Amino acid sequence: MKKSIGAKTTIYPNPALVIGSYNSHDEPNIMTASWTGITCSDPPCVSVSIRKSRQTYDNIMLHQAFTVNVPSEKNVKDVDYCGIYSGKDENKFEKLGLTPVQADDLNAPYIDEFPIVLICKLLNILDLGTHTQFTGVIVDVLADEEVLDEKNIPLFHLIKPIVYDYSGKYYYGMGAKLLKGYSSYKTAEIL
Amino acid sequence: MKKSIGAKTTIYPNPALVIGSYNSHDEPNIMTASWTGITCSDPPCVSVSIRKSRQTYDNIMLHQAFTVNVPSEKNVKDVDYCGIYSGKDENKFEKLGLTPVQADDLNAPYIDEFPIVLICKLLNILDLGTHTQFTGVIVDVLADEEVLDEKNIPLFHLIKPIVYDYSGKYYYGMGAKLLKGYSSYKTAEIL
Repeated sequence: MKKSIGAKTTIYPNPALVIGSYNSHDEPNIMTASWTGITCSDPPCVSVSIRKSRQTYDNIMLHQAFTVNVPSEKNVKDVDYCGIYSGKDENKFEKLGLTPVQADDLNAPYIDEFPIVLICKLLNILDLGTHTQFTGVIVDVLADEEVLDEKNIPLFHLIKPIVYDYSGKYYYGMGAKLLKGYSSYKTAEIL
Repeated sequence: MKKSIGAKTTIYPNPALVIGSYNSHDEPNIMTASWTGITCSDPPCVSVSIRKSRQTYDNIMLHQAFTVNVPSEKNVKDVDYCGIYSGKDENKFEKLGLTPVQADDLNAPYIDEFPIVLICKLLNILDLGTHTQFTGVIVDVLADEEVLDEKNIPLFHLIKPIVYDYSGKYYYGMGAKLLKGYSSYKTAEIL
């Protein structure tokens, strides 16, 4: 018998990702977003939900483009900072000593120090309430060579992604392998 | 200098969650979905992207309701199974020995053996390509008492959620705490 705890945004895990965009003066901004995920395989799409009060909201509306920057464990302090402070008050790239690089073809900056970057062109806007969901088509992915295998596949154990626990307010790293995906159910063993 | 690896759905981490729905005969079905995430705080919304070929697609279209079932590490084999086999061919609840429970007020089943369940009423449908994004308003969350603290807050280390590495095709558990969220940047220390 389960207990009702009311209508809450309690899925586990949530990602911790950082959204890059330019303001009206072409100054780069970054904000941390957890209400984010892949939403289509072909065309490859990612959706990012953002409050209207954020600088990033205005920036995406203006330039119709953004980046999704995937952090590694070593970037966790930058991730936390970008979720606290506003691009309306300061240039977070400068504050954190991070390097903004403009994406080819689209007017959005990415973080050079993060291992994986998705370059996104705005496809759809869905106003849901406190948050507006921006869905972008992923036009390219950039990766640090040291997190790729010989076939250019990103290696999870080298990326070291971050989960955010919305309930307990902690960032977590990844743990042990549990199971190979698409294992035959009857023969699969917990690793 | 980053390397372009082409337009891919490479965010890290992705969640591994299981979607519950009824078919036209009110038989319960479950499928694993990774293209899923919270999309609004108020009203609390979760979005789930599903291929049109899936039984779950027809079911959500019919009943305008679904559940998002959050697995624990011990459920990883069930999660993998529900991502391989189709509800068009078999009743996965019966096959896996899982217990379907109908949600109050909405016509959707949840998995009694999973620790956290979101009960969702369909709010919006967005056709993106291979996948259609269903956004649901979370009308209630049900939880096993043993994963809650005294204030009914879910405890991350007791839920033991699962990440799916889309590139490497492995399920992972959670690792160590990295940082307290909303730490003051200058004073925060890696734990």
